[in-house]
Amino acid sequence: MNQPFVLSTSSRTRPSPYYDATVAAGVQGFSVYNHMLLPTFYVSAEEDYWPIINGVSMWDVAVERQVELRGPDAAVLATMLTPRDLSKMKIGQCKYIPMVDHNGGLINDPVLLKLAEDHFWISIADSDVRLWALGIAGALGLDVTVTEPDVSPLAIQGPKANDVAASLFGEWVRELKFFWFREFDFDGIPLVIARSGWSKQGGFELYLRDGSMGTELWDRVAAAGAPWDIKPGTPSTLERIEGGLLSYGNDMTLENTPFEVGLGKYCAIDQEADFIGKAALQRVRDEGVTRNQVGIFIEGDKIASNTRRWPVWSMDDEIIGEVTSAAHSPRLERNISFAILDMAHQEPGTPVRIDMSDCLAGDGSRDIREGSVAPLPFIS
Amino acid sequence: MNQPFVLSTSSRTRPSPYYDATVAAGVQGFSVYNHMLLPTFYVSAEEDYWPIINGVSMWDVAVERQVELRGPDAAVLATMLTPRDLSKMKIGQCKYIPMVDHNGGLINDPVLLKLAEDHFWISIADSDVRLWALGIAGALGLDVTVTEPDVSPLAIQGPKANDVAASLFGEWVRELKFFWFREFDFDGIPLVIARSGWSKQGGFELYLRDGSMGTELWDRVAAAGAPWDIKPGTPSTLERIEGGLLSYGNDMTLENTPFEVGLGKYCAIDQEADFIGKAALQRVRDEGVTRNQVGIFIEGDKIASNTRRWPVWSMDDEIIGEVTSAAHSPRLERNISFAILDMAHQEPGTPVRIDMSDCLAGDGSRDIREGSVAPLPFIS
Repeated sequence: MNQPFVLSTSSRTRPSPYYDATVAAGVQGFSVYNHMLLPTFYVSAEEDYWPIINGVSMWDVAVERQVELRGPDAAVLATMLTPRDLSKMKIGQCKYIPMVDHNGGLINDPVLLKLAEDHFWISIADSDVRLWALGIAGALGLDVTVTEPDVSPLAIQGPKANDVAASLFGEWVRELKFFWFREFDFDGIPLVIARSGWSKQGGFELYLRDGSMGTELWDRVAAAGAPWDIKPGTPSTLERIEGGLLSYGNDMTLENTPFEVGLGKYCAIDQEADFIGKAALQRVRDEGVTRNQVGIFIEGDKIASNTRRWPVWSMDDEIIGEVTSAAHSPRLERNISFAILDMAHQEPGTPVRIDMSDCLAGDGSRDIREGSVAPLPFIS
Repeated sequence: MNQPFVLSTSSRTRPSPYYDATVAAGVQGFSVYNHMLLPTFYVSAEEDYWPIINGVSMWDVAVERQVELRGPDAAVLATMLTPRDLSKMKIGQCKYIPMVDHNGGLINDPVLLKLAEDHFWISIADSDVRLWALGIAGALGLDVTVTEPDVSPLAIQGPKANDVAASLFGEWVRELKFFWFREFDFDGIPLVIARSGWSKQGGFELYLRDGSMGTELWDRVAAAGAPWDIKPGTPSTLERIEGGLLSYGNDMTLENTPFEVGLGKYCAIDQEADFIGKAALQRVRDEGVTRNQVGIFIEGDKIASNTRRWPVWSMDDEIIGEVTSAAHSPRLERNISFAILDMAHQEPGTPVRIDMSDCLAGDGSRDIREGSVAPLPFIS
């Protein structure tokens, strides 16, 4: 393998409002996500993982940009943009909303926040949802502005997140329900506080509404978390594969419908409202899918996470799909992965072979492993 | 400074068809561009620069993804997507086409290739143009498919590019005119060969139409170029700032109109055809701009390129704009940059101050330099 490589940055790959603070905290690696720098590790993937499981971890996830819909047609546009039924959504609520194009292909899988009847944030994964929404709003002449406001989430995740948040914001925050939020003035730092976050360990996302206050917010969270030994961390590939959380761009793309990646349950495809992709998703539902997401255990030595998709073969050497994300699970002490496989190979226990070659060795040799299909999630 | 950082990759940051070849050639750094890995240097920014100026250099620019428009309404959609006048565009021609939204903000600044009357490629800079085009085509019910085909450009740039290309493809290629292309079967490797590329030194872009042949094409170009001492290289921040070439995401974003960044000359805003943003651009033309792109010489020691935008002050300590891209010019032996400045500070020679702090030092201190406004391009 030829990793690690140096990340070259420019103003095209914007630093987050927490950048200075994360550098001071010892960040070592970044990816690029929504045209911004996403911290990826401080010590190592495994060292950074345990505080999320057993303690509490704080993450710069400012790359979760907000696409703000505001104006008389904001609710009309929000409803068009997802197969999820939004008809009963309340102010103060979050909803996970797969978004699809007119052919039913996944555009993104963001979280929608309803701030007012005419004011929404779409908290996006890694694709330019703003361009998608602008194109539709403009073409249809909707009366709505589609902007990227100055909003940058900081996540606090782990079983001790409640204690840290209560010490920062007051006891009320313990009562905040999952996927609900509250606007909060934190000693002059304007926040939206949501019980949410991209782990299965629970916690909060603090949507900072003034990018000039990033270091101040980071430092206050770090200080308040010290009694619980809070650590700087990042979204964990290990934890999220264990828990069955998908990553847009890794585990699904515009080439997938929601039905192939376990997101059918969020699609109210017979709802009264018209949404983009409705006819296409009804057709897929009627015809059925030809491939579907499964887990795969990968045998042998501890693996590093994949840096490209890995081909998967049946035992009679037929290509049957691809591994999309893989990691070594510290809790299971096994190599685990997500894959999209043809329907004939979905049965748990089915043996497969995986080509784990992220880059061909100089002699052209490949790294092939044995594996077996597993049910998802790996840890519930 | 705290650079360099490690780049963390996953299948979300796709490797190019030339990835194995670039690793074998000694690539050391990458950025992420259009959700793919973009090689950024082999030896160093300056070592990689000289072959582009004096010899010939080969670049993996597969990140220039193609958005393919195909079908009865392909030309209708292409015309809507840019203020550039396409009415006389011929098959086999390339055109640089700024694209704007309904408010006149820049979506991207791609190159359009016309393969047939109903078949176009938009060779994009770093934003999801496919989502933009899909949203518009879907909302308007246009009869056109908008896909990302298996096409991956490899660039050959520099004064000796003609000799290398002629030895590979035949003498005909010397006659290919600037911004024209030809489809070509290169011993079974399907190519579109264009005289184009993101430098001012001349050369070709080979649009490979079969990603499985990346290493084969790379190796053949490297072998044919050996007599001219071809080097592996990358788009050069140094060369492109010297020559006045803009970078989408660095030097312009959705917050800029074409008129602020020297792209007004590509906007036929009074053309007969309706294009997206026409009314907005006519309004901007009539009202005039409040800021505009200029060059700035930065005094003092040799600088590294910026990793975020740098604030610019007037000599009476008023914020007057931002440096968007900066580098040390090996040919001028001076620090040069692009900036967007308020209209009152456009005069060449105007003294300014620049805050070059990419990250605050631990003691909060900043790196402030003197500079002066310069005309563009730095080298014509």
